[in-house]
Amino acid sequence: MRAERIIGIDPGYATLGWGILDFSGSRFKVVDYGAIITEPDLVFSRRIEIIYEQLTAILDKHSPTGMGIEKLYFTKNVTTGIDVAQARGVVLLAAQQHSLRLGEYTPMQVKQAVVGYGNAEKAQIMYMTKTLLNLPALPKPDDVADALAVAICHAHSKTSQLTIDN
Amino acid sequence: MRAERIIGIDPGYATLGWGILDFSGSRFKVVDYGAIITEPDLVFSRRIEIIYEQLTAILDKHSPTGMGIEKLYFTKNVTTGIDVAQARGVVLLAAQQHSLRLGEYTPMQVKQAVVGYGNAEKAQIMYMTKTLLNLPALPKPDDVADALAVAICHAHSKTSQLTIDN
Repeated sequence: MRAERIIGIDPGYATLGWGILDFSGSRFKVVDYGAIITEPDLVFSRRIEIIYEQLTAILDKHSPTGMGIEKLYFTKNVTTGIDVAQARGVVLLAAQQHSLRLGEYTPMQVKQAVVGYGNAEKAQIMYMTKTLLNLPALPKPDDVADALAVAICHAHSKTSQLTIDN
Repeated sequence: MRAERIIGIDPGYATLGWGILDFSGSRFKVVDYGAIITEPDLVFSRRIEIIYEQLTAILDKHSPTGMGIEKLYFTKNVTTGIDVAQARGVVLLAAQQHSLRLGEYTPMQVKQAVVGYGNAEKAQIMYMTKTLLNLPALPKPDDVADALAVAICHAHSKTSQLTIDN
């Protein structure tokens, strides 16, 4: 079976987590992962330009065919929420420019896909992400681990046959 | 005095208003204006790609040096607000890529700059925008007129000497 290459994104403007997986049958292979960090002393428009440029370079280098990205929901801090949404806009632009199959998932959907139920604790998601991906330790910061979990969710959304197999 | 060329933006993902003015001393000259419209049956990421592409073409054609854009504030419809913010992100990206002097203004600041007080009615802003720009009629849709008003506000923010002079 041909592998699908998926990038998962945990959106943000200060720290954006990303992780790339190859998925074939029920097997995952971690390709690469990291975080795009932007400094708070830069003007906001420059910060999202950095995100766009670095993400474009990552997509050009690894050529994923799909992107899973967390859905936004605003609760407490609306101002931060607006800035995250603005940063997420340039991520969607880069995805569209690379013709990626795009999937957007709530935190509950990610938990359901990775752990098996939507009310899982953070620690359980982290543990299952590490296990499913056969990683010796979870990458830091948490945004990167979250991005890998979204990538797993996106793989799962297509096949509905996610099993631990490594 | 050398004219500054300013683009004003009323952000949106279904309709984005834009208007370009040359501003020299206290005089305005309307260069061009219009609306970027995206169809609701397109996927969202394609809609913001269209906005990015068309805005980039406008910036390349007219080479403004500054951009005034409305600030976002979320009140009732948070879901729509998230999508407007995502579209606004690609506008900020295009502004940054063209090294524009960027100014962000609340509706109250736009009213203050165009009419002279922040609680002006919509009809007053429209009338003053038409008068200041010496237009025979206000361009439609309203998003375009709003964009021209933001451009006036951005001109004013630099000089603090806005007078009717046409």
